[in-house]
Amino acid sequence: MTELREVTLGDLDAIEIGAAILGTGGGGNPYIGKLRCREELRKGRRIPVIPLDDLADDALVVSLGGIGAPVVGVEKIEQGEECLRALQALEAELGCQIDALIATEIGGANAMEPMLTAAQAGLPVVDGDGMGRAFPEMQMCTWSIYGHRSTPAAMADEKGSIVVLRHTPNEVWLERLARANVVVMGAAAGIALAPMRGDFVRKASIPHTLSQAHALGNAVLRAQANHADPVQTVIDQERGRLLMTAKIVDLERHLKGGFAIGHIALEGFGENRGEHGRIDLQNEFLVFRRDGAVEVCVPDLIVVLEADTGLPITTEMLRYGQRIAVLALPCHDLLRTPEALAVIGPAAFGYPDIAYCPLATVAESHAAGPGGETLA
Amino acid sequence: MTELREVTLGDLDAIEIGAAILGTGGGGNPYIGKLRCREELRKGRRIPVIPLDDLADDALVVSLGGIGAPVVGVEKIEQGEECLRALQALEAELGCQIDALIATEIGGANAMEPMLTAAQAGLPVVDGDGMGRAFPEMQMCTWSIYGHRSTPAAMADEKGSIVVLRHTPNEVWLERLARANVVVMGAAAGIALAPMRGDFVRKASIPHTLSQAHALGNAVLRAQANHADPVQTVIDQERGRLLMTAKIVDLERHLKGGFAIGHIALEGFGENRGEHGRIDLQNEFLVFRRDGAVEVCVPDLIVVLEADTGLPITTEMLRYGQRIAVLALPCHDLLRTPEALAVIGPAAFGYPDIAYCPLATVAESHAAGPGGETLA
Repeated sequence: MTELREVTLGDLDAIEIGAAILGTGGGGNPYIGKLRCREELRKGRRIPVIPLDDLADDALVVSLGGIGAPVVGVEKIEQGEECLRALQALEAELGCQIDALIATEIGGANAMEPMLTAAQAGLPVVDGDGMGRAFPEMQMCTWSIYGHRSTPAAMADEKGSIVVLRHTPNEVWLERLARANVVVMGAAAGIALAPMRGDFVRKASIPHTLSQAHALGNAVLRAQANHADPVQTVIDQERGRLLMTAKIVDLERHLKGGFAIGHIALEGFGENRGEHGRIDLQNEFLVFRRDGAVEVCVPDLIVVLEADTGLPITTEMLRYGQRIAVLALPCHDLLRTPEALAVIGPAAFGYPDIAYCPLATVAESHAAGPGGETLA
Repeated sequence: MTELREVTLGDLDAIEIGAAILGTGGGGNPYIGKLRCREELRKGRRIPVIPLDDLADDALVVSLGGIGAPVVGVEKIEQGEECLRALQALEAELGCQIDALIATEIGGANAMEPMLTAAQAGLPVVDGDGMGRAFPEMQMCTWSIYGHRSTPAAMADEKGSIVVLRHTPNEVWLERLARANVVVMGAAAGIALAPMRGDFVRKASIPHTLSQAHALGNAVLRAQANHADPVQTVIDQERGRLLMTAKIVDLERHLKGGFAIGHIALEGFGENRGEHGRIDLQNEFLVFRRDGAVEVCVPDLIVVLEADTGLPITTEMLRYGQRIAVLALPCHDLLRTPEALAVIGPAAFGYPDIAYCPLATVAESHAAGPGGETLA
């Protein structure tokens, strides 16, 4: 995998596709963010990328992104400077200058937000993120899991409102307060979290994920151009596994507390004829069952692709009759520790009876990978 | 009416009764706040009172109080330093020292909060407020009506959360965001609003209302001690009018968006035998009808007293069968201007068809009164 050192115009389409796949159905659509990044690059702005290893110990790194309901983002297009204003409010709050930005989650729209803000603010973006995928709540990022306190945090909306969450008893209370504010803000806002030191970011981030999204998207684009199988391409690129090719035969999806909750029922075709699948969702795809038995669950990635094109389908775009390929991709080791599973394991999503069984052993999934980095 | 220059132990009971009457059913119960003030005074702390006229032009005055649902306050007792922490957060936000505190609303629990914080912080409290009664939302105070922008505002809860609402498009958005935060905070928090200059506070506040609450409560206490009629005492003291002595024969009250909404139906007794009354409520009593016709409405004060004792009944304490006296008290002139009626007139509470008809002419109501002050 090539390490990105700068995001240029030709990279955006690939990052968009890769980020959408890593969103596992959630995280919102990166399309609008891509267009805004393109505009910034066309104006001559730049998006430098710093590898994690190049971060100075005392560099101040801010994670930022959009917060809200992905389904709202379909109709309510961001004004474009929400995250920039959140960053500026945070700098004003702390009286300090930030050195670099990092994505809270690489999956979905929030892959683009730090790149956009980086271009606007003249800052670099770090090659990594706090989830290696998408999750619905902020305390589900590795930095919170491994001890970072994200207050003070600053939020900004398109109408000019600025809210500073200066202190909260813990990360979950921050999420609750931020969520209440974003609902009033129209279910879409930018949020910048308390800066982290470079040495902490190096060890507690999911590494290389911007490059990973870029490489993954490029692989899909190449497969499409070469009339190769894009689904197999994603599997090969991410060392994943095909769970089922299937048709959506039932769909239940409702909004609850700003989240898209529900499930899809699947009827296998091709090699999976006669099998029945089910995927539970809460913004992201959480649990895959085959004929009633749990086979894959969070924090491993469950990815739904259009069977023909290999393009990802987000939860809000699911519909009856779609022909899909369901893939499982192994999550990073940092998401598999006991501390992490307490926050992002199946029990944290309301499945106390599902025991997390890693999709592949660490050796299998990361032997040839970029990572293997563990928290010191 | 004696002007208070300092609140001492012997004044608290009277202020409690007067504030509860001026709460027109809302504003929460001042009882707990009174106990906390008493504790501070017993510890040797003091609560100096500044008359509005003594405020320096450039004095920095902060209005503060509790925000939340009065009915929650019945069971969730404040920790006691919520408003102090909100004030400290506001001072930290602005890097300035505040000179005096003022009650956002004199009606109900928020009469006590600035006195409590004044004792804790070593500051004086101003003899006046922003409503002359209670209203359910923050933008309904005279300062907002006459042009003050209340951001930045700081909120604090009993768990240690601090939220700074740094900027909002207008006062209504501040109310919305603050309301969303306080719901997460458990429906009870302290809030301190952006400082005002002394010259603005002098002309845009309802004057003398701390002294007014004190005098009113003292009159009720004297009437009780002398076996005089406490209901008539309130009428005489506030130049009000007895609307009806009645029994509550129907009660509908539900919580909606944190507000107590509903109405009570009344059957007159004594001189009002044969009459039917109805009072609509939204935390406070909004509209009084006699036999179907509107007779008194916001911003004039509708007060419900226990017929026997003359003690005020708040909306959360209303019950079927209570024997009550319904009084109307004229509001201050600052609440009767077109600017004010746009925010606190009947239309603002969902009654576009009710034309506000002042309870008594200004000459009648204020001829002998302390006020008559108008906005320059």
